[in-house]
Amino acid sequence: MSYIDLKYKPSKDDLICSFRIEPAKGLSVKKVAEAVAAESSVGTWTNIKTMKPRIRKMAAKVFEIKGNWVKIAYPSVLFESGNMPEIMSSIGGNIFGMRAVKNIRLEDVEWPEKIKKSFKGPKFGIYGVRKLLHVKDRPLVGTIVKPKIGLNEREHAKVAYQAWIGGCDIVKDDENLTSQSFNNFEKRVVETLKLRDKAENKTGERKMYMPNVTAETREMIKRAKFVKKQGGEYVMVDILTAGWSGLQTLRDEGLNLVIHAHRAGHATFTRNKRHGISMLVVADIARLIGVDQLHIGTVVGKMEGGKEEVYHIEDEIEKRFIREKGHYLEEDWGKIKPVFAVCSGGLHPGLVPKLMKIMGKNIIIQAGGGIHGHPKGTLLGAMAMRHAVDASLKNISLKEYAKSHNELREALKKWS
Amino acid sequence: MSYIDLKYKPSKDDLICSFRIEPAKGLSVKKVAEAVAAESSVGTWTNIKTMKPRIRKMAAKVFEIKGNWVKIAYPSVLFESGNMPEIMSSIGGNIFGMRAVKNIRLEDVEWPEKIKKSFKGPKFGIYGVRKLLHVKDRPLVGTIVKPKIGLNEREHAKVAYQAWIGGCDIVKDDENLTSQSFNNFEKRVVETLKLRDKAENKTGERKMYMPNVTAETREMIKRAKFVKKQGGEYVMVDILTAGWSGLQTLRDEGLNLVIHAHRAGHATFTRNKRHGISMLVVADIARLIGVDQLHIGTVVGKMEGGKEEVYHIEDEIEKRFIREKGHYLEEDWGKIKPVFAVCSGGLHPGLVPKLMKIMGKNIIIQAGGGIHGHPKGTLLGAMAMRHAVDASLKNISLKEYAKSHNELREALKKWS
Repeated sequence: MSYIDLKYKPSKDDLICSFRIEPAKGLSVKKVAEAVAAESSVGTWTNIKTMKPRIRKMAAKVFEIKGNWVKIAYPSVLFESGNMPEIMSSIGGNIFGMRAVKNIRLEDVEWPEKIKKSFKGPKFGIYGVRKLLHVKDRPLVGTIVKPKIGLNEREHAKVAYQAWIGGCDIVKDDENLTSQSFNNFEKRVVETLKLRDKAENKTGERKMYMPNVTAETREMIKRAKFVKKQGGEYVMVDILTAGWSGLQTLRDEGLNLVIHAHRAGHATFTRNKRHGISMLVVADIARLIGVDQLHIGTVVGKMEGGKEEVYHIEDEIEKRFIREKGHYLEEDWGKIKPVFAVCSGGLHPGLVPKLMKIMGKNIIIQAGGGIHGHPKGTLLGAMAMRHAVDASLKNISLKEYAKSHNELREALKKWS
Repeated sequence: MSYIDLKYKPSKDDLICSFRIEPAKGLSVKKVAEAVAAESSVGTWTNIKTMKPRIRKMAAKVFEIKGNWVKIAYPSVLFESGNMPEIMSSIGGNIFGMRAVKNIRLEDVEWPEKIKKSFKGPKFGIYGVRKLLHVKDRPLVGTIVKPKIGLNEREHAKVAYQAWIGGCDIVKDDENLTSQSFNNFEKRVVETLKLRDKAENKTGERKMYMPNVTAETREMIKRAKFVKKQGGEYVMVDILTAGWSGLQTLRDEGLNLVIHAHRAGHATFTRNKRHGISMLVVADIARLIGVDQLHIGTVVGKMEGGKEEVYHIEDEIEKRFIREKGHYLEEDWGKIKPVFAVCSGGLHPGLVPKLMKIMGKNIIIQAGGGIHGHPKGTLLGAMAMRHAVDASLKNISLKEYAKSHNELREALKKWS
């Protein structure tokens, strides 16, 4: 029984994976690609007596091998529709631990219509979020309350307030703040939403708060419902440390809340370019399941992530149609809404022009230290960030703009 | 503000992490260790105006640096008790993507009493499972129905039946079989449990079926309840592709079902010894949350995983007290029950003596291809496997034992 057919033309019903494979010593890419196709579909390491002819037809097929790059087509019948953990147990599972592979990386996935249809996709997406915020064509400006851990509920709310009236559209909790002894989730939500209302009244702008609901699933849903009840419009969740089962449950609950996806932990498996799963695949899955905003990197900040990689991810989550290119696969997202790209990690006003040049306007520029670290504090830090965005939109250099904007000048002096 | 204190003695209330850190070019291990301690506790990349003196006291402390090995103590107040996703967003989150690190691996975690107490641990554990199965002091023998995907419900049940009457104690679904068009979950459970009862009657032994409930959380719980209602005693779940939120929900549901944990996907982040999170940490978390059985590797089969590594994992999940050794940390598991180690992946009867010599009797020997691939099929394959276990328990060589056991002889001929 062979899992290789280089003449095979994938059908519309196939799920296609693009892998980079380095075989273990003494083995060929072809041999290992075949073992990968077997293990991730209907086969195992030895021939078995319980195999049936009709099951052979369900086998995954290696249909392209170019150097270390391998494409495999999986008949969609193999998978349970709407069950992301199951799909990932197939294409993101055992194959990464096989002795026969030295390194293997799942670089991209092309999803068949049948599977795409079985997930909800984003409820809001870029344009839903823009509508909610009444911001048509500039990047959104956000901040993370800092220090990331340790403020009490009222201190937290006050920092958020300063950020909002300084010019931030959205304020979020950090990835490791949920409900601790020093800062209770429910109390924080109440206090912070109260000041959100005040900030909206004061500025005339819409202001959003994204409380971190990450927890065991039932607790997570309970917290999201609490946010809704208190008049919140957003939740944020650490999608990878919570996991796909919990994320699907949150999305499928239909709470009509914008879901902001933090990717803490992704770099445990995305960073090594020769082994693991790419951030592109994580982004695909997040869009399918239906988050509205996703951290994708900054190119220019404290986190790793090359320019080309971040571009591809932004395209994948924002565009309707992705063209096949080398080992990147085609995708027609159809009616599945685009996801807002969040750039976060080590950003400050000085990096904004370059960031916007690279990433465009459809981004959320999120800065924590780059706002609360401003020499005059959060309020002026938020003002400086908003100035940097305004200057870039007007094509004025920050140096020039800073002449008439003290806050920006002070920020540039600290981080240059 | 410094995150380094090499004179610091961790308190009973600290969570301790053992990291291996390779700094980015031009940076020292010490410098990067400090950045890691900051990012994973209360700090960020720049000094901020919103920091308060009392929060400085909550900072993580680097208290030991030996070459590339670094130990960091985190005051437990940083974490939300009983919230594993939150804890992992701290110690398994952003730090893996920092530009300042070239590679970083979380090798081991020592859990403070306060956090240990906030999780349920295994409901059954090794001795609860042994009691359920009426098997006191031999390894359990299990199989995975193969082909892993494609059999219909009745075919699936029949293969399971053959395995049970041949001598398997437990039969499980494979990691990527959940509820597909060719094999419906509920129907499969009904059919398979029916033949389990028949096999118990025929053999006079207890027989267990582990249906794969991996899915979105609500669906997963629904499936587990269905299993319970049908008289099942076990569920299996792909703990990593489902994720910690969903796993906690399944455990906390209190269904009184044994939980078998498949680790599909672990090697995306555990395999590279210089970057990611170790399988040891995954095993720790699984024991804390409370699975009863966990795949840990085979040393001898188709999956990678060195001897020393698998030993450590077995100790960690089975023992009450783990002694500190080099970069491995101490752990007192107290009343948290031991987890049954499952050895699975490329096993066949010929490998059993070596496996038992390495791993002892407190293991579940699980073979898919090594049973269903027997030249005479599943029934004789299961018999051969059970013979191999019996021979090893009696200290008789397989070659000798095979003289009077045809099934074993044929297995040894195929896989030698």
